[in-house]
Amino acid sequence: MKKLILGLLVFVSSYGSAQDGYKLWLQYKTVDDAKLRQHYSELNEAISLDTTSSTGKVIQKELKLAMQGMLSQKPQFSEENPTLLIRKVADLPKNLKPKQNLIDSINDEGFSIQTIPSKSTAKILITAKTDQGLLYGVFTYLKQLQLHKDLTELSITDSPKIKKRLLNHWDNLDRTIERGYAGFSIWDWHLLPNLIKQEYIDYARANASIGINGTVLTNVNASAYILQKNYLEKVKALADAFRPYGIQVYLTARFSAPIEIGGLETADPLNEEVRQWWKDKATEIYAEIPDFGGFLVKANSEGQPGPNNYNRSHVDGANMLAEAVAPHDGIVMWRAFVYSDEKPDDRAKQAYTEFVPFDGTFKDNVLVQVKNGAIDFQPREPFHPLFGAMPETPLMMEFQITQEYLGGMSHLVFLPKLFEETLQEDTFSQGKGSTVAKVVAGSLTDTQLTGIAGVSNIGNARNWTGHPFAQANWYGFGRLAWNPELKAKTIAQEWLGMTFSTDPAFVKPMTSLLLDSREAVVDYMTPLGLHHMMAEGHHQGPGPWVKDLGREDWTSVYYHKADSLGIGFDRTATGSDALSQYAPEIEKAYSNIETTPEKYLLWFHHVPWGYKLKNGKTLWYNLARHYQDGVLEVEKMINTWEQMKPYVDEIAYKKTEMLLSIQLEEAQWWRDSCLLYFQQFSKMELPDFIPKAPHTLKYYESIRDPYAPGIKPSWD
Amino acid sequence: MKKLILGLLVFVSSYGSAQDGYKLWLQYKTVDDAKLRQHYSELNEAISLDTTSSTGKVIQKELKLAMQGMLSQKPQFSEENPTLLIRKVADLPKNLKPKQNLIDSINDEGFSIQTIPSKSTAKILITAKTDQGLLYGVFTYLKQLQLHKDLTELSITDSPKIKKRLLNHWDNLDRTIERGYAGFSIWDWHLLPNLIKQEYIDYARANASIGINGTVLTNVNASAYILQKNYLEKVKALADAFRPYGIQVYLTARFSAPIEIGGLETADPLNEEVRQWWKDKATEIYAEIPDFGGFLVKANSEGQPGPNNYNRSHVDGANMLAEAVAPHDGIVMWRAFVYSDEKPDDRAKQAYTEFVPFDGTFKDNVLVQVKNGAIDFQPREPFHPLFGAMPETPLMMEFQITQEYLGGMSHLVFLPKLFEETLQEDTFSQGKGSTVAKVVAGSLTDTQLTGIAGVSNIGNARNWTGHPFAQANWYGFGRLAWNPELKAKTIAQEWLGMTFSTDPAFVKPMTSLLLDSREAVVDYMTPLGLHHMMAEGHHQGPGPWVKDLGREDWTSVYYHKADSLGIGFDRTATGSDALSQYAPEIEKAYSNIETTPEKYLLWFHHVPWGYKLKNGKTLWYNLARHYQDGVLEVEKMINTWEQMKPYVDEIAYKKTEMLLSIQLEEAQWWRDSCLLYFQQFSKMELPDFIPKAPHTLKYYESIRDPYAPGIKPSWD
Repeated sequence: MKKLILGLLVFVSSYGSAQDGYKLWLQYKTVDDAKLRQHYSELNEAISLDTTSSTGKVIQKELKLAMQGMLSQKPQFSEENPTLLIRKVADLPKNLKPKQNLIDSINDEGFSIQTIPSKSTAKILITAKTDQGLLYGVFTYLKQLQLHKDLTELSITDSPKIKKRLLNHWDNLDRTIERGYAGFSIWDWHLLPNLIKQEYIDYARANASIGINGTVLTNVNASAYILQKNYLEKVKALADAFRPYGIQVYLTARFSAPIEIGGLETADPLNEEVRQWWKDKATEIYAEIPDFGGFLVKANSEGQPGPNNYNRSHVDGANMLAEAVAPHDGIVMWRAFVYSDEKPDDRAKQAYTEFVPFDGTFKDNVLVQVKNGAIDFQPREPFHPLFGAMPETPLMMEFQITQEYLGGMSHLVFLPKLFEETLQEDTFSQGKGSTVAKVVAGSLTDTQLTGIAGVSNIGNARNWTGHPFAQANWYGFGRLAWNPELKAKTIAQEWLGMTFSTDPAFVKPMTSLLLDSREAVVDYMTPLGLHHMMAEGHHQGPGPWVKDLGREDWTSVYYHKADSLGIGFDRTATGSDALSQYAPEIEKAYSNIETTPEKYLLWFHHVPWGYKLKNGKTLWYNLARHYQDGVLEVEKMINTWEQMKPYVDEIAYKKTEMLLSIQLEEAQWWRDSCLLYFQQFSKMELPDFIPKAPHTLKYYESIRDPYAPGIKPSWD
Repeated sequence: MKKLILGLLVFVSSYGSAQDGYKLWLQYKTVDDAKLRQHYSELNEAISLDTTSSTGKVIQKELKLAMQGMLSQKPQFSEENPTLLIRKVADLPKNLKPKQNLIDSINDEGFSIQTIPSKSTAKILITAKTDQGLLYGVFTYLKQLQLHKDLTELSITDSPKIKKRLLNHWDNLDRTIERGYAGFSIWDWHLLPNLIKQEYIDYARANASIGINGTVLTNVNASAYILQKNYLEKVKALADAFRPYGIQVYLTARFSAPIEIGGLETADPLNEEVRQWWKDKATEIYAEIPDFGGFLVKANSEGQPGPNNYNRSHVDGANMLAEAVAPHDGIVMWRAFVYSDEKPDDRAKQAYTEFVPFDGTFKDNVLVQVKNGAIDFQPREPFHPLFGAMPETPLMMEFQITQEYLGGMSHLVFLPKLFEETLQEDTFSQGKGSTVAKVVAGSLTDTQLTGIAGVSNIGNARNWTGHPFAQANWYGFGRLAWNPELKAKTIAQEWLGMTFSTDPAFVKPMTSLLLDSREAVVDYMTPLGLHHMMAEGHHQGPGPWVKDLGREDWTSVYYHKADSLGIGFDRTATGSDALSQYAPEIEKAYSNIETTPEKYLLWFHHVPWGYKLKNGKTLWYNLARHYQDGVLEVEKMINTWEQMKPYVDEIAYKKTEMLLSIQLEEAQWWRDSCLLYFQQFSKMELPDFIPKAPHTLKYYESIRDPYAPGIKPSWD
């Protein structure tokens, strides 16, 4: 019988969509080990669960699905003699109530999972203060089964460390996605509100399973249209579909909406009519969606309208919107990604310069949303100097899950490693150990309103993210949003086990592959602190030669500053002095080229080509070494993957294999073209380990890709 | 055991992607009837098949998949004692060779399936002259099993009646699709040639299963970029993936490509450099893709460049390209959808006026591709007068499968009924019975090069087409391309049985629903011969009030000409005289309002509001009656669908239910807004059966939908 089951599953999974990754990390694969399965079956035979709430109902549905998948078992749902008891703390019988200190230790979204030592029939208890806590508890419980953990002495108590854990969709209303590499937007606005696609439900499920509790549906480069009545009906339909999974919806607010759809003459945030318009709009929204989350705003940045158009400040703008949503418990997320329209000093400095003076002046329900680094989602950036520099203002972290500067959807890069690096950097804002993670979690300043956002990599690709491994970045973002102290390694192991196989022969080498993949992309794209030298506009592929654009700080030469003497951006006191925006501990260390971490060398210093690095070799040699190491690492990934064939189904195996071949070609393209380009300035020979480039620099410079994904094409 | 299998399948099919329609009509569902299954199992126990060719290999793969799905049976593939024998005629042993007249009756793509009466172990023989014929034979054989046919006296001999059976993809290189309603283009150009998605293989399989043998990958509003070397490598990769399934690739040729990517100063088709450039380009293409199909060209139409830019004719342009591909056996499909940039006489007349004089002057490898009607893919149009009017020129039929004017992807409309109507109209070109089908199949003129094209409705939606029932239109187009004499009813029955269920309690009512759905859309959008009065630009929803656009013949008022006297376009001798382009038999009948079929009444006549139709009621009354009948028909569809719940899986059931609710709302919107609009002119009361419209005409006229799918938005 088992053989037949396996045979059938193999059949199903070898056919097209059944194995296209749509199920993400919620595969609920059959537990093959008979003993373990017996263990699980006994514990999940009968489940007691309150299904009066809509969240209770989706918990039940999930348990059915999971038990059927993993155990081919249909659990009994009844209050009589349950083996698994799922109840809110308030509803527990006295003898099963956890100790008060355990109850106190979890917050409203937290939960506790315990093996029950008593002689009651119930063997496992999942409890929480709210339905949403129960949902998170159940997903965490199911993960233990997916990872084949022993459940005999289960004791997990956990709560999210950050309050607002959001995806940001840069999805346009025409369903194109800015910097999206996985197809069209999953929001099919045209057919909403009537058509509620199964994808919407499964999107909410997947997010809830990793603790994400909100989603901004629309692009920060916003359309006012979304705030019109007919669109709000569509937003409401999505909110209704997401609600049982604890996902709140948010929208981007176009600052000029009062003019564009309100018929007003101005959008001046101090104008009374404008203020009233936003208040009325908020009332209108909340009448439809009582738990609407609030607004995300990109203002006065890259052409977006904002308060500066009326000589008002970001505070004026943010507080006006905050006032509009405050009566409804809404929040405003105001992005700090702004840069002056005038000739830049150093773009890395601008957000800090503009925002620090505002510290403490925003209303209570405003979060300032700050990208992880001061430039723009590079393969590596030092943490943004705003973190730690605005103690009176809640700062929301903005990570980018979609790989705008990291190879689009064709490069395997495990981003939790990048996120972890930023989160664990020390701001020194409250002395040593004041990590970015602590700033974001609010623990240094006892901030209550905390948040983190990830720019989504989801599209309508059959497997959501295009690259099978890009799912890991969605998963990893969610896990770190829940707990920013989590290790990237833990996340990798979880995701691999849930998605593919728990076999150590698979998990071990693949964990290394994932963890090493981030350094690989840094090496073959922008080693040693180089940054922002991707091809123009679409950012796919190398473009160190990009210059003479509309703005100097859109070019590559502005950032690498390669010349006959050396390469790198002097951000010390002799240069732009961006370093002074960091704590003195950092400023002091990084001002000295000798004590600057080599990974940030060219971020902070203009370094002579012949300068000797710690290994005693020249900068030029080391630059070449890193480029070559990046390529070699991709070759290693390909070798590792070849050995994983037995653990992965055929179609996912082949797809990844083909994508890795693209990654290798592009890594070589980066190495060859960048080294040829920089050699013009260094005038030094390339080390022997660099193979001869197959093309000339001129050829590389001539490559154009007007239809590259992620932006609207300019060539037609 | 059976219960377990069913249980597992139910589990699988109730979860997300496993049941998203990705499998199309190739569901290969378990045959539940034990006796029938036994019958099938015995016949397919052992299969003898030549797998030396790549097509042989895919036949084997398909048989495995089908037998595993339908019978949970792994057939033996061996030459020893096969029960099913699949062999080319030339390779058959003498005693199994079919009679010569049977062999003569099939063409190179045809096949014969016969129950073998002899005492050999082989019980069924599938034979053909080519591997491709075998592939078609196998798919046809598998269809018998899918439809639960008795195989004891199988005798099917069939050949395609049309040589070039193509899909046309209006897919842009940035993956948007013009008039596409099912997401992004499935061609992921950026990741080609390396990434060969499983979707490409399954696309080819699906097409081969219905006899489609070619695909034009790119939009007729073309980019020259596709003809560049780096893109041709991508095209080659697709051609390689499709080849085993007998699918040839074609491209659209932008007429100005010699300037845009060739660096020439002109694209004049009589210029020697230009001619040489195209010859060289063809040589370059065929070096990569030896079986490249050829070019499709939209020239001098809607802003596309063409020979007229150089005062050359369509013949000059087409023949230049034909000369370039002729040495490689390529063809040119030259679209007749052209209309003058100057003030139109009657747009319906223009293609005929321009092309008839060219009859007989195109090179042998040119097909003139003609839309089914003279305007533009309306819910109903009389056949295009060019059919039958160019006996010396092969005319290729162009149908539109994507529902540009038929509700986008939210309306259930079974298009084979529309295609059948056009194909069965009589051109009288060679006397009575000279149907459009015969013109297209070339049987009236013994034309060898014949063709038919369908503008694809496929995108990267998880189920390919968005609406579950839009798959039927892809299926139906393929079947009619194979045999334009097929009945829409037969196609509906086949598709329903293969896709959902063979249960007569399902197939019978649903066949009626499908067949009636086309008249419903005509009724609620454009009854009695009305046409081209959809909303501006995106064509979603009603827009009879559209006027004052760049061109008169882009407006609605140009087409319906409603005024205080009546409504309709006088195309008789007293009007535009477009009728004179048809055969005298038609001209005579349709010139007289009394003998004009009522379905074409307002296409050919301007009719007084009070004119009495055959039922003795006024035109105004009948107009209202048709609009109301359309709405009632959709209500009936909803009722029928509700009764189909037991036969359809839950997600597809709900999705269709939600889509039908959109269709009903939009049918009402059409009825209410059109009747209010026309009432301004008729000044007549609406019959009692028309409910009061919920909105004013002004409201309907104010509706804008800048993000409607299918076109690039103009509002941002």
